[in-house]
Amino acid sequence: MITVALAKGALLKDSVRRFAAAGLDFSALLDDDNRQLMVPSPCGTARALLVRNADVPVYVAYGQAQFGIVGDDVLREHRLPVAPLLDLGFGGCRMAVAVKASSGYRRAADLPAHCRVASKFVRCAEAFFDQLDLPVELIHLTGSVELGPITGMSEAIVDLVATGRTLRDNGLVAIEDLFTSTARLIGHPIALRLDQGELQSIVDRIAVASPPARQAVTA
Amino acid sequence: MITVALAKGALLKDSVRRFAAAGLDFSALLDDDNRQLMVPSPCGTARALLVRNADVPVYVAYGQAQFGIVGDDVLREHRLPVAPLLDLGFGGCRMAVAVKASSGYRRAADLPAHCRVASKFVRCAEAFFDQLDLPVELIHLTGSVELGPITGMSEAIVDLVATGRTLRDNGLVAIEDLFTSTARLIGHPIALRLDQGELQSIVDRIAVASPPARQAVTA
Repeated sequence: MITVALAKGALLKDSVRRFAAAGLDFSALLDDDNRQLMVPSPCGTARALLVRNADVPVYVAYGQAQFGIVGDDVLREHRLPVAPLLDLGFGGCRMAVAVKASSGYRRAADLPAHCRVASKFVRCAEAFFDQLDLPVELIHLTGSVELGPITGMSEAIVDLVATGRTLRDNGLVAIEDLFTSTARLIGHPIALRLDQGELQSIVDRIAVASPPARQAVTA
Repeated sequence: MITVALAKGALLKDSVRRFAAAGLDFSALLDDDNRQLMVPSPCGTARALLVRNADVPVYVAYGQAQFGIVGDDVLREHRLPVAPLLDLGFGGCRMAVAVKASSGYRRAADLPAHCRVASKFVRCAEAFFDQLDLPVELIHLTGSVELGPITGMSEAIVDLVATGRTLRDNGLVAIEDLFTSTARLIGHPIALRLDQGELQSIVDRIAVASPPARQAVTA
């Protein structure tokens, strides 16, 4: 039995499509009425776990799923022992530093030392400001990070930017990118090492179905 | 200007009601069409921030909000420097250890040493198992924790239980409570210390509007 961990939300539709190209049909997950968290494929040889973004690498790292599809942003933030297999190219977004449009800061290095930065991605943010050699106080939020600068709690935020609309609607502007992120196929390292060819053939078929990805900018 | 941080979700309706009893009208937050994260009261002297559960104590700890209403579970998990003011009695639920109904474990001490326990509340879980003197491996998940035992990733979970329906639907059973949790009014310690009476009168009016809370069971 092959188990794959898929993320709820924006990546789900394309994730289901890629596994369909490899012969594994999890289209039942796309049914609006679906309430199941564990869905078998009609062929009976595989099943999908529908979990939150950040939990995909957990199920793969612990070997409950041989494969998972998740954004590179999550992999960079949570740093779990999973094997990165393919850049699938979809779900593109940028991890960016943003400030109030009225603030006058035009790049991250303009921020004052020891200023506050709010983020859901505090480990990515910490690595970025460490590399800049700019000491900042990180505030971990779990949602609506744009409220940080609006309320005056933080000078800046580090957050994912897709269209930029949320930033604009809140009077914020992105001033510097940490990296770009796309969806990645990941695998359980030991399952792959013990593979008799079955897992590799799935990886190969997903690779064929994936357009060449733009190279992600590394931080 | 008085700012209060309120949690999206199950606690919101009752939270708005308590502040209404203190003369602060944030009923605009209950409008299904509301998309604003920061809503002024019609009287113009106060505003509410609508944030995620775990972020309420952050806004209060940093002084962006003088008051917040949040579950005791969140306060115990995140341990931020906020002043606990009132037990409001609503939003009652239990933090419990649950296992597969078929597992044979009937209390937490039955679990094998070094077993895996999945939870969104790893600090609460850690404190509980430390106190039991039972070493366990904690797995941090961000949602659908019941998948832990179902997939075989963990022997047990530590999670909030309200009606118990999610557990039953997934073949799980609660075997031991860590504590019961209810909504709490919290305040910014320095704001309260510098208060000229305005904040205290709000606390007093909310206290009068709150039925005597059942005593929370401490872990």
